[in-house]
Amino acid sequence: MATLIAPPNHSPQEDAESLNKAFQGWGTDERSVIAILGHRNVHQRQQIRRAYEEIFHEDLVKRLESEIRGDFEKAVYRWILEPADRDAVLANVAIRNGMNYHIIVEISCVLSPEELLAVRRAYLNRYKRSLEEDVAAHTSGHLRQAKMNADRIGLVYGYLYKIRNPIELLLLGLVTAYRYIGDEINAKLAQSEAEILHEAVKEKKGSQEEAIRVLSTRSKTQLIATFNRYREIHGTSITKKLLDEASDEFQKALYTAIRCINDHVKYYEKVVRNAIKKVGTDEDALTRVVVSRAEKDLKVISEVYYKRNSVLLEHAVAKETSGDYKHFLLTLLGKQE
Amino acid sequence: MATLIAPPNHSPQEDAESLNKAFQGWGTDERSVIAILGHRNVHQRQQIRRAYEEIFHEDLVKRLESEIRGDFEKAVYRWILEPADRDAVLANVAIRNGMNYHIIVEISCVLSPEELLAVRRAYLNRYKRSLEEDVAAHTSGHLRQAKMNADRIGLVYGYLYKIRNPIELLLLGLVTAYRYIGDEINAKLAQSEAEILHEAVKEKKGSQEEAIRVLSTRSKTQLIATFNRYREIHGTSITKKLLDEASDEFQKALYTAIRCINDHVKYYEKVVRNAIKKVGTDEDALTRVVVSRAEKDLKVISEVYYKRNSVLLEHAVAKETSGDYKHFLLTLLGKQE
Repeated sequence: MATLIAPPNHSPQEDAESLNKAFQGWGTDERSVIAILGHRNVHQRQQIRRAYEEIFHEDLVKRLESEIRGDFEKAVYRWILEPADRDAVLANVAIRNGMNYHIIVEISCVLSPEELLAVRRAYLNRYKRSLEEDVAAHTSGHLRQAKMNADRIGLVYGYLYKIRNPIELLLLGLVTAYRYIGDEINAKLAQSEAEILHEAVKEKKGSQEEAIRVLSTRSKTQLIATFNRYREIHGTSITKKLLDEASDEFQKALYTAIRCINDHVKYYEKVVRNAIKKVGTDEDALTRVVVSRAEKDLKVISEVYYKRNSVLLEHAVAKETSGDYKHFLLTLLGKQE
Repeated sequence: MATLIAPPNHSPQEDAESLNKAFQGWGTDERSVIAILGHRNVHQRQQIRRAYEEIFHEDLVKRLESEIRGDFEKAVYRWILEPADRDAVLANVAIRNGMNYHIIVEISCVLSPEELLAVRRAYLNRYKRSLEEDVAAHTSGHLRQAKMNADRIGLVYGYLYKIRNPIELLLLGLVTAYRYIGDEINAKLAQSEAEILHEAVKEKKGSQEEAIRVLSTRSKTQLIATFNRYREIHGTSITKKLLDEASDEFQKALYTAIRCINDHVKYYEKVVRNAIKKVGTDEDALTRVVVSRAEKDLKVISEVYYKRNSVLLEHAVAKETSGDYKHFLLTLLGKQE
């Protein structure tokens, strides 16, 4: 269930004109911006963008960027985009910021197969490169660098190449996945692949590649059956096991992938919880979850948050944020004026 | 340019009824089947299927399977399907028949990014598994088997895992690719990646994975620039080099991928040439090219064939095939009655 409150009837033209009015004069009337955009669904927002372009011959997104600032600007910018386009931007920022691969994993594993394809399409349109191209270029960049140095100083050539970066393979597998959607479960496969995952958890040599194959090709239903089988065999969930034992980046990425596939609501609750708990608050993470889920299942995430923390999510957000940014997030969280 | 001759006006109902009449009595009137289906484009064929279903409450494809036989049946069956569905079938047959990976490479590298996605979608719908799932399961099957035996007899566990199957990685990369389509060329990249490909040709250790990354993520325009750069640096084309030096299956797959990306018309001409030259003729390959390209560029392939062999393709086909199968191929090749 969504938290967004959007009126069924709105006039894109009136909205565009009200926004333009909010931009006039000294400073911007942020409250009006929030009152409008914070109460419009994805289709309505696109209509407003088009109406604004037609009336004022100016891109609303560009205008907003010049009118508002900081976390508020970032949140409004992400919010106004269509979901696939927004995820393309989030992925690109994650790649450029030293490869925050958890966000890449999150996008790949939470979205439906068709939604993921839409993100890849949006990424191509926006950046003129494929998502997997950028992921591959950025994850293995330091390996290639190492190789060239080796050449220069005359080391045995092939050696450094062999140090595979399993995270690259995992990310590429997840990002390019196009899974079957269906309820069929193969119990025998769940059994054998639970063991493959267990080997990857225990860091058996070579087991990583098998785990990647399983996680990037099986349907989500099948994978959840595999995770359940794992718990039956080992008496603890694979995510608990990974949390206790994860020793390297690959295992941490594995952990994120499994959580996103298994129960993305619980996953998002934890992202929000950590973002709020963090000293100084992780605004990027908080914005990402609120903006991405407000039209989908933020209400459910919010309920799980309350159950887990005995604090209302909107109270926690209100406590940790301020100003227009706070006001905007609370609006998307469904807080009535 | 296509070779198919299809009248702009046809009545799907009349066609369905004529086909049904051709099925009546003792034996099938194959000439009528060819006269109708061999002169209908993809949309018309789907209309006929729907009309047949409505009028006779029977799937035309199933009925055809029970009416006709052998190479002719196979050709008609492949022809009647929509292109994405046909390629899904071709890919599945290739996987089941001991992994004929050249067909997987061909489908992945000749099709446009959106066409390839459509094949993956059709594959999911038809087989309830993803294409990459089946490719991964079949290419690395024997490695997993080896691993289990090693466990049983107590060999060092991780060792056999390490023997990566680079063909698996190449096929997965190509099958899941979603390339950028655009004319931009990065000359510096073409230079450095021509060298990466050269290392893979020379079988430098570890170079395979880099070559896979290049071939499965770059745009076709960029890759063609890279192949051209290769020729400038090394004085010979990369495909010529591979043809002379290819020593293993991975390099042969690389060869196919590069040919398909570089110039699929020349690639198809060679497939047809080899199919015809082969003792006994390779009907599967011949059918595949004629059926897949008749509505696209079979005329161009045919012209290139004539230039190369000084024999008209339809004469060569007529010489090597017979009966209804021959008649059907010639019809698709645009031979007038």
